Amino acid sequence: MKYCSKCGAVVEQRIPPGDNRHRYVCNACHTIHYENPRIIAGCLPVYHNQVLLCRRAIEPRYGLWTLPAGFMENGESTEQAALRETLEEANATVMIRSLYTVTSILHVDQVQMIYLAELPTPSFSSSEESLEVRLFNEEDIPWDKLAFPTIKNALKFYFHDRKTGQFPLRHIALSLGNEGELCSEMGTHQ
Amino acid sequence: MKYCSKCGAVVEQRIPPGDNRHRYVCNACHTIHYENPRIIAGCLPVYHNQVLLCRRAIEPRYGLWTLPAGFMENGESTEQAALRETLEEANATVMIRSLYTVTSILHVDQVQMIYLAELPTPSFSSSEESLEVRLFNEEDIPWDKLAFPTIKNALKFYFHDRKTGQFPLRHIALSLGNEGELCSEMGTHQ
Repeated sequence: MKYCSKCGAVVEQRIPPGDNRHRYVCNACHTIHYENPRIIAGCLPVYHNQVLLCRRAIEPRYGLWTLPAGFMENGESTEQAALRETLEEANATVMIRSLYTVTSILHVDQVQMIYLAELPTPSFSSSEESLEVRLFNEEDIPWDKLAFPTIKNALKFYFHDRKTGQFPLRHIALSLGNEGELCSEMGTHQ
Repeated sequence: MKYCSKCGAVVEQRIPPGDNRHRYVCNACHTIHYENPRIIAGCLPVYHNQVLLCRRAIEPRYGLWTLPAGFMENGESTEQAALRETLEEANATVMIRSLYTVTSILHVDQVQMIYLAELPTPSFSSSEESLEVRLFNEEDIPWDKLAFPTIKNALKFYFHDRKTGQFPLRHIALSLGNEGELCSEMGTHQ
């Protein structure tokens, strides 16, 4: 950030009065431009024993497999965002069952919320954002072709929890050093 | 938003190619400036049968009671944000037990996440952000002097759930029309 989006003057980084962090502050109109994490909302759609994955038609990770998920927009709820992304990316209408993973991805300032969802009928198709959409049995999951560690985590939790039928909320914090690993903060609180 | 924060040129609202929403787009460098909801993270600290509330020393809602909560910052997890806010606003160090409420507040583009937390010792004090910090029994909660509907909801859920000892995650969506009411999306998924 170099310029004030409100008045066009140059901004500089400084700690505003009463604050303890550097912010972009406008030299002219004194607006403080806060920057905060963004929410990624999505679904883990399940049809019988299979999960729905999408092969990305967009960067980053073009051609790799993912769960339908994307940036939450202003004016919607987290659930609406998850349902919308599932519809946009997989042309699938699902029913949300529960919030399943909340992952703080520290190095990119994102919080990913994945909902466990039921796909009532095997109705889905590719889209502008997905080259291919299909259902996978556990043994067919393309583990080495998944787009993001957060997706791998969600799927691992799912196949683990499915054995017991209990799907507790999972809290995960990922940072650059442990991007590929489940980290120590992982797990449930209760 | 009037100017591009990257190059200082004028922005205009239009739908970028491949998108379906109006965004602020720079006329000169073509940067798309996305705007997304922000996360408020906080705690509902419990000490024996009492809950900890803070009386706000800042606007909005100066002088009204609230749970310690505030904007999540870049570079931290949702739990770290909740713990930091509790420390900053109430000088209290708590232990998080579980994620308790997730409230999408549609008309202000915020998602509030409140964690149920244990205050191990009755150690807390006022701060730059709180005129007063104290423990309340259920019968002493200042219901008509609470700062936000989300705080009222969280406290109502807590006193309701305490009877059973089960504290399931609550999903709530608030919009301008139902700001003061628990809305129809309220409740648990499971």
